[in-house]
Amino acid sequence: MRTAVLRDRAFMIEDRPIPTPGPGEVLLKTRLCGICGSDLHQFKHAAQIDQLARSMGAPGQDLAKGLVLGHEYVGEVVGFGPNTQQALQPGDRVVSVPFLLRDGSPVPIGANVEVDGAYAEYFLGTEALLLKIPDGVPDAAAALVEPLGIGVHAVAKSVLQGNSHACVILGCGPIGLAIAAVLRMRGVSLVIASDFSPKRRALATTMGATRAVHPREESPFAALPPGLPVIVFDCTGARGVLAQAINEVPVGAQIVVAGIPQGEDSFNPMVAIAKELNIQFVLYYAPEEFAEALAAIASGQLDWQPLVTGTVGLDGIAGAFAALEDPEVHAKIMIDPWSDAHL
Amino acid sequence: MRTAVLRDRAFMIEDRPIPTPGPGEVLLKTRLCGICGSDLHQFKHAAQIDQLARSMGAPGQDLAKGLVLGHEYVGEVVGFGPNTQQALQPGDRVVSVPFLLRDGSPVPIGANVEVDGAYAEYFLGTEALLLKIPDGVPDAAAALVEPLGIGVHAVAKSVLQGNSHACVILGCGPIGLAIAAVLRMRGVSLVIASDFSPKRRALATTMGATRAVHPREESPFAALPPGLPVIVFDCTGARGVLAQAINEVPVGAQIVVAGIPQGEDSFNPMVAIAKELNIQFVLYYAPEEFAEALAAIASGQLDWQPLVTGTVGLDGIAGAFAALEDPEVHAKIMIDPWSDAHL
Repeated sequence: MRTAVLRDRAFMIEDRPIPTPGPGEVLLKTRLCGICGSDLHQFKHAAQIDQLARSMGAPGQDLAKGLVLGHEYVGEVVGFGPNTQQALQPGDRVVSVPFLLRDGSPVPIGANVEVDGAYAEYFLGTEALLLKIPDGVPDAAAALVEPLGIGVHAVAKSVLQGNSHACVILGCGPIGLAIAAVLRMRGVSLVIASDFSPKRRALATTMGATRAVHPREESPFAALPPGLPVIVFDCTGARGVLAQAINEVPVGAQIVVAGIPQGEDSFNPMVAIAKELNIQFVLYYAPEEFAEALAAIASGQLDWQPLVTGTVGLDGIAGAFAALEDPEVHAKIMIDPWSDAHL
Repeated sequence: MRTAVLRDRAFMIEDRPIPTPGPGEVLLKTRLCGICGSDLHQFKHAAQIDQLARSMGAPGQDLAKGLVLGHEYVGEVVGFGPNTQQALQPGDRVVSVPFLLRDGSPVPIGANVEVDGAYAEYFLGTEALLLKIPDGVPDAAAALVEPLGIGVHAVAKSVLQGNSHACVILGCGPIGLAIAAVLRMRGVSLVIASDFSPKRRALATTMGATRAVHPREESPFAALPPGLPVIVFDCTGARGVLAQAINEVPVGAQIVVAGIPQGEDSFNPMVAIAKELNIQFVLYYAPEEFAEALAAIASGQLDWQPLVTGTVGLDGIAGAFAALEDPEVHAKIMIDPWSDAHL
């Protein structure tokens, strides 16, 4: 099967064998796969990520094997491994949290050299984790379940209760936009988004922000009404933003860090202490949060179309990664391994 | 009245007028005043603290006037200003949260050049904030209400519910020891304390830790049972400790930062994200937490005697500050302005 392999900051199309599903596993045909910000991160920083994992006690991996990314997938059931229930039918469309369960432990899909992701014609899923996509939900909408699940989780890990807080979103990439959508679903009446890009600011108000500002022209914190408690979602993944937010947020604010800055970051603890801030770091989602994201998309609560700005085949991935460097043009680009589309 | 004035990292004994209580205020005679870690911090870093406050938008202060520190006080009612209820009697002993209420706003006592603290024979309190010390509670116990209130608050701001978490205390200065005492009061059955000093480790187990370790010999996190959620109280006030804790704590832990590191601090956000950590910064206490600390001391729940290791007069303050650099000898030193004691 045709497979896009990342090695040394370049994608090569290689011919690899179609994988064989193990016990409890299902062979899935890739219908569509979104390009995630963490894929861009792996593209640039795979070696450093591996180094950090080793420093945290992980065994590390042989990056020379090449990474097959892709975890925002829509799969179609093709075949079953041993010890499967087979309640799903061949042809059923599915999403799932991007993990295989092997020996009871979750193993990430499309994030390391051991388990390939959906930047390929086929990939494997664990049957017990698959969620059937209801009829009538387009593939492109279903492929957004994963980033929306990140938004559901980030909001759930915050101290938000109903419409209890004013919210600020720093950075309107796909995660910031997903959080804007979830905050709208939760009924939050004041959501100020901040991004340098006019297109991203426009998307933010489309998705759920009540207002979007250019951070060099106006602090997103300046417009907050006094007295209302504040939650800030840092979705920039940029170093220095946390320190700046700590300096600018009002007393008692919570900062939810949903982006992934690379390397060391610094801040002034005395400022955080003087304001009694809370910082919550978040990653992934629980399976029920993922399922809630699918239900929200299926029920039409999420206006997903503006997010999807392009589709490419495997040969178009390199161009798509380059295009995503410019926030003015694209937000979410989908990969269809069965297409030969380029941007 | 004799007053210990801090200017340019040195204490001078000056003769100053006895202050006149304003509306709602009470003149208090200093019976005893504890030396706080934040006093040591002011001693070393007053200029930087002022600079930081200015950078956060505060007006700043004229440090040449000299600081009169002292906010862990036991006062004795001497006289009343205008517009006071006078339910207290002259001779009554009182503690209070270390603020004056002026025009409805809290103004800290003993932390800036505007409102002098209790490193003097007399000082002012706001009548509405004074709590009468029950008979039979020694002055030295009552002077510990303020640091114990810090402990009550730090624990209240954490996610602890009953005996829900294993707790780790990094740094067994007065705040770490107060937190150990509060955790014992709360019925927490696993509290591991960490300090380089044998004396501080011994005090920690006296106050409430179930075990105390030398961090160079044994990580306080190594002894934690798997699966039990963890709260870490960083009471070191040292740079680099937060980063190290982020690296060493288990997944999902909360780190409560109760010490005050000076200057910038750095850490690796990706590690905090991978573990979905929560960091809560804390400062001071609510009035009801302060009152709870007084009630706990009055009821004998707190074994306070081991904490108090010395008493000095105003002339002995400089020596006491020097002595507190060595954790082996002293924990909490009290100032009695009416005594001529030295260490």
